[in-house]
Amino acid sequence: MAHQKFLTQVQGRVQGLLDHYLPAESLKPQRLHQAMRHSALNPGKRLRPALVYACGEMLGCETKTLDVPALVVELIHAYSLIHDDLPCMDDDDLRRGIPTCHIAFDEATAVLAGDALQTLAFEVLASDQTLTVSPSTRLQMIAALTRASGSLGMGGGQAIDLEMTNKATDLATLESMHQMKTGALINVSVQMGYLASEIDDPKVFEHLHTYSQALGLAFQIRDDILDIESDTQTLGKPQGSDLDKNKSTFPALMGLDVAKQRAEELVESALAALNQLPYNSDNLAAFARYIVQREY
Amino acid sequence: MAHQKFLTQVQGRVQGLLDHYLPAESLKPQRLHQAMRHSALNPGKRLRPALVYACGEMLGCETKTLDVPALVVELIHAYSLIHDDLPCMDDDDLRRGIPTCHIAFDEATAVLAGDALQTLAFEVLASDQTLTVSPSTRLQMIAALTRASGSLGMGGGQAIDLEMTNKATDLATLESMHQMKTGALINVSVQMGYLASEIDDPKVFEHLHTYSQALGLAFQIRDDILDIESDTQTLGKPQGSDLDKNKSTFPALMGLDVAKQRAEELVESALAALNQLPYNSDNLAAFARYIVQREY
Repeated sequence: MAHQKFLTQVQGRVQGLLDHYLPAESLKPQRLHQAMRHSALNPGKRLRPALVYACGEMLGCETKTLDVPALVVELIHAYSLIHDDLPCMDDDDLRRGIPTCHIAFDEATAVLAGDALQTLAFEVLASDQTLTVSPSTRLQMIAALTRASGSLGMGGGQAIDLEMTNKATDLATLESMHQMKTGALINVSVQMGYLASEIDDPKVFEHLHTYSQALGLAFQIRDDILDIESDTQTLGKPQGSDLDKNKSTFPALMGLDVAKQRAEELVESALAALNQLPYNSDNLAAFARYIVQREY
Repeated sequence: MAHQKFLTQVQGRVQGLLDHYLPAESLKPQRLHQAMRHSALNPGKRLRPALVYACGEMLGCETKTLDVPALVVELIHAYSLIHDDLPCMDDDDLRRGIPTCHIAFDEATAVLAGDALQTLAFEVLASDQTLTVSPSTRLQMIAALTRASGSLGMGGGQAIDLEMTNKATDLATLESMHQMKTGALINVSVQMGYLASEIDDPKVFEHLHTYSQALGLAFQIRDDILDIESDTQTLGKPQGSDLDKNKSTFPALMGLDVAKQRAEELVESALAALNQLPYNSDNLAAFARYIVQREY
């Protein structure tokens, strides 16, 4: 309940930040800016920003210091969704219950809107003055975000996902693909909170890394389960779309019950990692539990 | 002649840098990395890196210090070409004489390869240790490159170009579109050389800005002229493609002779700006002359 309140607060805060940092619709080129706002402002769960806040606040950061890191992980996420939805990729018409960017606008605008959201993330991270960390910490944040989202992270994961479609695969390959495609950005969200605190403690970093690796995988397994058990209205996207697209999923490879059990085990190992930290990690713990209980 | 030798040296150096910094083809996901290398390593004129070196060396930088800034402007240029060539944008099959990325691979891979080249540029700029400038200069470089390439720069220019296709336009709109689409990246290439020198002199910056603004526009006018006067083999792309695509061009709006004259005038004003600088600007001057004399 407290965690739901925290998430709702984050959603409001991130909505305000996006509205502030995204170029105005009245600014030329209007259609491009409308498209960027259409997709990024479409209310989502804002899980990645929530992880930045939860981790950073645990380590003593002021909320304001975390705004830019929280914003930029969401901008990268928004860019990736626009490109993943394109006809040449997953060809999705609906996202969070509204038309995807290339449906609401056109394909060219959707490609450019994704491109520009990526650029904006690095612009804000490099230059915004509300982020009060040292220049070298800022550079570490940029480097971490590029690694998480580039060809060895999120972008590479999407490429492997496309290669895997319509092909039989094994569990290790599926896990490694998701660690790149979804896990890397979840991981770097926690890392952003750590970097913002400017605490330089390899042990703390290591436990947070263990936590976020387990969390990312549990998140994806839950996603696969929801694609089977939920309905289109709750999901905001077509239920059963993994199956329709011939995508490998955890439940398909290991069975639904084993998948649920594996998600639970991952949450347990995430919680165990938090227990090693000399901080009050209740909020991050609630996060891990929420991940496997969420209904959309 | 000396300038041609300089350009050839830069081309060799940039080829080596690209080969070094681009992920190996053997690295997973292989197809994505092959696509990134296919497009970025395809030998181009490397004008933007050449501007980084010419400006930085004039201001006393060692060549090695300029490698990373030179590399990253080319990575951003390469990413933009891949996306601009997509079927939903300019739909080009040929680039520098070889198949474009989506032809050689597929559309999804081309979108992801462009995305990852953009990310790689910021990764290298944020973290590579051969760049020996201070952290805050590095951040200024990242901020400058994001502004030049985002929705108010290169990306926005491409959006406006697409909107303008098949429509009548006036000279002011055409100029402003090209200042964003091509000019901004040419401009920031000169700025990268300036930033790498860590000289903080607003007057020097201002004259370099005047120079590069004029250069960018002259470059585009020459491009439009070549599209009329050159042939497909020399250009490495179909001659007359602007006309085929119903794109507005400078010669179409002002006549071929006036366009040539305007390009010459711009070169004169670029040279005049260089004359205000207390440095040996011979190389940048030769650059400006080359821009309006080049045959491809």
